[in-house]
Amino acid sequence: MSVRVCVDAVGGDEPAEVVLAGIEAALAADPDIEVLVAGPDQIVTPFCDAHDRAVPLVAPDVITMEDDPISAVMTKRRSSIVLGCRAVKRGQADAFFSAGSTGAVTAAGSAYVTPFKIERDGKRAPIRPCLTNALPNRAGGLTVLCDMGANPDVEPMDIVRFAQMGAAYASCVLGIDRPRVGLLANGTEEHKGSAFTQTCFPLMSELVDGFAGNCEGSDLTSGVFDVVVCDGFAGNVALKAIEGAAKLMMDELKSGFMGSLKTKVAALLVKDMMRQLKGKLSGDAKGGAVLLGLRGVVLIGHGATSVEAVKAGTLACAEAVRADLIDRVASSMGSIVS
Amino acid sequence: MSVRVCVDAVGGDEPAEVVLAGIEAALAADPDIEVLVAGPDQIVTPFCDAHDRAVPLVAPDVITMEDDPISAVMTKRRSSIVLGCRAVKRGQADAFFSAGSTGAVTAAGSAYVTPFKIERDGKRAPIRPCLTNALPNRAGGLTVLCDMGANPDVEPMDIVRFAQMGAAYASCVLGIDRPRVGLLANGTEEHKGSAFTQTCFPLMSELVDGFAGNCEGSDLTSGVFDVVVCDGFAGNVALKAIEGAAKLMMDELKSGFMGSLKTKVAALLVKDMMRQLKGKLSGDAKGGAVLLGLRGVVLIGHGATSVEAVKAGTLACAEAVRADLIDRVASSMGSIVS
Repeated sequence: MSVRVCVDAVGGDEPAEVVLAGIEAALAADPDIEVLVAGPDQIVTPFCDAHDRAVPLVAPDVITMEDDPISAVMTKRRSSIVLGCRAVKRGQADAFFSAGSTGAVTAAGSAYVTPFKIERDGKRAPIRPCLTNALPNRAGGLTVLCDMGANPDVEPMDIVRFAQMGAAYASCVLGIDRPRVGLLANGTEEHKGSAFTQTCFPLMSELVDGFAGNCEGSDLTSGVFDVVVCDGFAGNVALKAIEGAAKLMMDELKSGFMGSLKTKVAALLVKDMMRQLKGKLSGDAKGGAVLLGLRGVVLIGHGATSVEAVKAGTLACAEAVRADLIDRVASSMGSIVS
Repeated sequence: MSVRVCVDAVGGDEPAEVVLAGIEAALAADPDIEVLVAGPDQIVTPFCDAHDRAVPLVAPDVITMEDDPISAVMTKRRSSIVLGCRAVKRGQADAFFSAGSTGAVTAAGSAYVTPFKIERDGKRAPIRPCLTNALPNRAGGLTVLCDMGANPDVEPMDIVRFAQMGAAYASCVLGIDRPRVGLLANGTEEHKGSAFTQTCFPLMSELVDGFAGNCEGSDLTSGVFDVVVCDGFAGNVALKAIEGAAKLMMDELKSGFMGSLKTKVAALLVKDMMRQLKGKLSGDAKGGAVLLGLRGVVLIGHGATSVEAVKAGTLACAEAVRADLIDRVASSMGSIVS
């Protein structure tokens, strides 16, 4: 099936050339994709003229990492992020990939791709989209973390839906048969947790297939759970704590390697291995973070992007579309009304 | 000044011989300490008979890592953990060190060493003791994390007091002149955070010297902040996320080193460096976690302890007593009434 992915040519900290080279690599790798390239005319048009299966989506405004996400989405209506999300909503594209501001893509995705609605207190209410990613774990697999930061304050039923959507992502994108779902807490015993997670626990038991109880921060990387669910505050804190710890260890290793002639020799011998390790821990195992709960695939890559990362994100979008991620996420929540 | 430290001989996952060897090493390292050795008669009495400056505190009951902390403290009244805390309360010891169950030592410390009281709504109320530790950071120093897990649900004024106590610990124990205090959130901007942390922010600005704004999970190891304050839920999640990430990297390094002959040679060359790295990241840089807010020094070592760790914990207790940690913590909070 041919899939059309819209890619934000100007998102991220790297120059547009890096993103364009990534798109070129994705087009070469998958003959069944088309790319709608979103960005300023002078950047996207020459590229699309020179490449088959690349179509320009001219977006004169640019939302930067420094912009306030919400107000940028409201005022920069002709930005690549807003037009990319609108292209998905209108069916001009099947998916959108950006390495731009996480906050801006989340805001634009919620506003323009729009979340599913659910029956709540007799009224239709949109569900909260949940920022989801897959982290490498000690069992050699990946663990899904949701929410990574889109919703710092949530209600217990939001947590239930994050869990259902995260499990659908784990089975659909990671191919895990019956994902084991953990509720992030300050201990694994059932009585552990905050008052909030203790309210969530019985709802999770009742409503989430594969719910396996409380888990701890270390279970984001232990491999004991396939999906770890939490509010976006705890999820963001945990994710950034892991990133910080990985940086600390990389620093320590680097200075350790410089310590003596012996360790300098060792450093030369493990150069490739260290590069692989760094890549593995970059947090973009599946192309980036996906916003679950929207009516279209929206994937957010790391701001400090690379040709490989843009290629991976573009291909991951196509993969998610082909795997029917959106329908599977919607059906995981039973009570979706529209 | 001679300091008497009570040490729990049976706390932790290791046999009592390991703890006793640690006590022996501490006695040898510091001629101005005495150790009150708490544990079953057959363990502590022969040791104290053979060592000057070691006094037995016979405690026939043992609280294990598997016991429910609260009920164990209530029922095992003649355990080393309960008797050790009571010895501090009664002035028989100046400080207590245990590598036993964090939950049980926290419960016994709160019940028997007792927290300071503060004027609240016209009544005297005990403050919440806060579990505090110092983690290595990328600037080559240590960052204080409080609360690490004693209080999953707190009020904004608890966060203010954790910050005040954490800053007192940073200046008293780590010797940091004017500690920079960060409020853990999901982003550094002032508008970031949960509804709860947004309520804390203005109180922190008003009441905490050195308050430097919101910080992120990565700031636990960045070195940009000296003290990171949060509720015990987020603190525990972040701490265990860091521990898990360190284990993941150690696993990856180990399997990377086994990958080829070249990397196996490198592994031999960096053996000492890797051992140092592991020690540095063990989280017991200052002997263990201290319960701030109590009327005595209570230090909790890692359960998977070692001779070195028991020695370090015992000496850190003496150091904290000599540095007047308790008085400095009390005076950091201004409104202590008893």
